[in-house]
Amino acid sequence: MLSPDELEARLKAIGAERYHNRHPFHLMMNEGALSKDQLRAWALNRYCYQATIPIKDAVILSRMTDPELRRIWRQRIIDHDGEREGEGGIERWLVLSEGLGLDRPYVTAMTGVLPATRFACEAYVNFVRERSLLEAVASSLTEMFSPQTISLRVAEMLRHYDYITPRILSYFEKRLTQAPRDSDFALDYVKRGARTPEAQQAALKALTFKCDMLWAMLDALHFAYVEPALTPPGAFRAEGK
Amino acid sequence: MLSPDELEARLKAIGAERYHNRHPFHLMMNEGALSKDQLRAWALNRYCYQATIPIKDAVILSRMTDPELRRIWRQRIIDHDGEREGEGGIERWLVLSEGLGLDRPYVTAMTGVLPATRFACEAYVNFVRERSLLEAVASSLTEMFSPQTISLRVAEMLRHYDYITPRILSYFEKRLTQAPRDSDFALDYVKRGARTPEAQQAALKALTFKCDMLWAMLDALHFAYVEPALTPPGAFRAEGK
Repeated sequence: MLSPDELEARLKAIGAERYHNRHPFHLMMNEGALSKDQLRAWALNRYCYQATIPIKDAVILSRMTDPELRRIWRQRIIDHDGEREGEGGIERWLVLSEGLGLDRPYVTAMTGVLPATRFACEAYVNFVRERSLLEAVASSLTEMFSPQTISLRVAEMLRHYDYITPRILSYFEKRLTQAPRDSDFALDYVKRGARTPEAQQAALKALTFKCDMLWAMLDALHFAYVEPALTPPGAFRAEGK
Repeated sequence: MLSPDELEARLKAIGAERYHNRHPFHLMMNEGALSKDQLRAWALNRYCYQATIPIKDAVILSRMTDPELRRIWRQRIIDHDGEREGEGGIERWLVLSEGLGLDRPYVTAMTGVLPATRFACEAYVNFVRERSLLEAVASSLTEMFSPQTISLRVAEMLRHYDYITPRILSYFEKRLTQAPRDSDFALDYVKRGARTPEAQQAALKALTFKCDMLWAMLDALHFAYVEPALTPPGAFRAEGK
């Protein structure tokens, strides 16, 4: 049985080892080594993940029997969907996609998304539906690692790609305040809620699963668009769709 | 194939025949024929339904892929859970329960709720999870019938039961504006979305299911607390718990 602080340290160690900021594709992005088409492929596939977020959060909401807990968790859905049309995280991701030259209807239709991306997103929704609420909440803890990754990514992207502007990257700016608020709550929930060695191991595995899922999305991108660049049939073509 | 207006008429005909305002238990309530303990049993069991509502709405939310649709539907969850502690529909139902002399922790623990009530609520959540989104939305259309029922109920309860005050019935007052807003949207969604004879029949059946579910809750109350008044083991006892 770990103390709550030991559990926190173990959770953070998972991120240090497995968070997708260490993936070769992300390293290339930060080094300015990706072509515009490769960045387009990234934005297009990541849209599938963004569109999945409020769905997985609504599944989690549907599993919470405490109105107090629901009031806190529902803010994630509001952040992503916005208060009205033209606002929210999904919309800001579309601004990024359009800024890279992708057509909005092509992005939202997700027809060019890699099958492996879809499967990973689907696995995430299934995970939060089927596992314990503690595991579902723990799987959100990748947000502990995102602010640092985002800060670096924004700075490096602005530096390396002349067609990237702060406006295009507004999604990330918002996440710098939203992610810590969300992960502070989730971390506290997991530290308090994991009261047996089994529950603690389950929480650690849940975060590992989530890191694996994000990593798998980049593996698929790397394979299809970097090396060996074998784009599957039907997917976005790096030379233009 | 029905026209949208014919479909609306058929949906409304289901309510005229099957909505729970026609159940003997509700007729007795409006006639002032229920004892305070029978009203307590009603409030206690209906709490189980109230607590289920945001859960089923979160399930529906998790099935909506359109952010615009989610922005509208999520308001139901906000209405029920409130903006902060001490607000919202669930809280107002607890005010009603406490006004009838029930302990709040006893109500929220739901230990005295009839098993048949739980099963009916569970069936509702399963329904919106397993059926089409159109059917899930159509099942909410009992709200078309609630304002009239609520108006009459509030007037009759205030007239017949001297311990019932407007403050205790504040839940119903809010629903008078929330329910029409919600059912107007849902009715429009169903009329537009049911584009085949099969989809129309499925929508009609979904509303029938929901009426059956509400009716079954009152059957269980009637059986346990009115006639033959055979209260099952563990359930709230009408002579005081």
